[in-house]
Amino acid sequence: GDWALVNIGNHFDLKASVFQAPRRGIYSFGFHVVKVYNRQTIQVNLMQNDYPVISAFAGDQDVTREAASNGVLLQLEREDRVYLKLERGTLMGGWKYSTFSGFLVFPL
Amino acid sequence: GDWALVNIGNHFDLKASVFQAPRRGIYSFGFHVVKVYNRQTIQVNLMQNDYPVISAFAGDQDVTREAASNGVLLQLEREDRVYLKLERGTLMGGWKYSTFSGFLVFPL
Amino acid sequence: GDWALVNIGNHFDLKASVFQAPRRGIYSFGFHVVKVYNRQTIQVNLMQNDYPVISAFAGDQDVTREAASNGVLLQLEREDRVYLKLERGTLMGGWKYSTFSGFLVFPL
Repeated sequence: GDWALVNIGNHFDLKASVFQAPRRGIYSFGFHVVKVYNRQTIQVNLMQNDYPVISAFAGDQDVTREAASNGVLLQLEREDRVYLKLERGTLMGGWKYSTFSGFLVFPL
Repeated sequence: GDWALVNIGNHFDLKASVFQAPRRGIYSFGFHVVKVYNRQTIQVNLMQNDYPVISAFAGDQDVTREAASNGVLLQLEREDRVYLKLERGTLMGGWKYSTFSGFLVFPL
Repeated sequence: GDWALVNIGNHFDLKASVFQAPRRGIYSFGFHVVKVYNRQTIQVNLMQNDYPVISAFAGDQDVTREAASNGVLLQLEREDRVYLKLERGTLMGGWKYSTFSGFLVFPL
């Protein structure tokens, strides 16, 4: 539907993962972006219309998989766009196990 | 009630933690499973009717407590079951500090 | 409004971050508290009327930024207060990048 965004695991497609608000309201967003073992720190930004709203980090070099997670409530105007941007680092192996979810909490 | 699942901290009982959808709809689930210090990596799966939907990992060997976290929106049919499964590793000390939450975002 | 709490990034002000329930109901809360590099373990408690409900930890000494995250559904009575408390450790650099969100799932 046009009100909810669900991206799960291997099917996470960044290009298809832009949420566009169908109406004005308060929305809840959450994400868990999983990096695999490597020597990089990643920074993931949640973007609202090209501006970063919140960030999450994962930088442990000793673990196999680690998630950069965060979540937020946002007041969106109609047609506002929300999406994830990998601000720093790379995701070797892609977005496997990563999730990005959003839903309308209530309209305004 | 039959629409919400809340499991908190020391009272986390895996056997009692099967959520069964009272009706068709979009549900939000989130979990944070805390492992204590040990040399294992844990993998926690969120299961929908015996199939894994999303996974989370915790594997740092140097920290006292670390959480494997993830969250997702799921479209459930009536009587679908959702629960957590410890796919890999062990939880010494049990599920202390772990949480598992779910609620109906809206019916379909 | 009096029904939702959103605290984002640099504007996170612990003193202003007490949520007071406008009515009886089930509420969803989530938080991600980011610590910077240092040799401390932090413990963050989600408090309901001065009692800890859930905890989260971050203790890795090798990473630049790491989050203590958790989330929960709570049944609140009218005027119940919910807030975060840094139970252990210090946040050098303050609450930068941290978030704390809550909303009414449904009234009772």
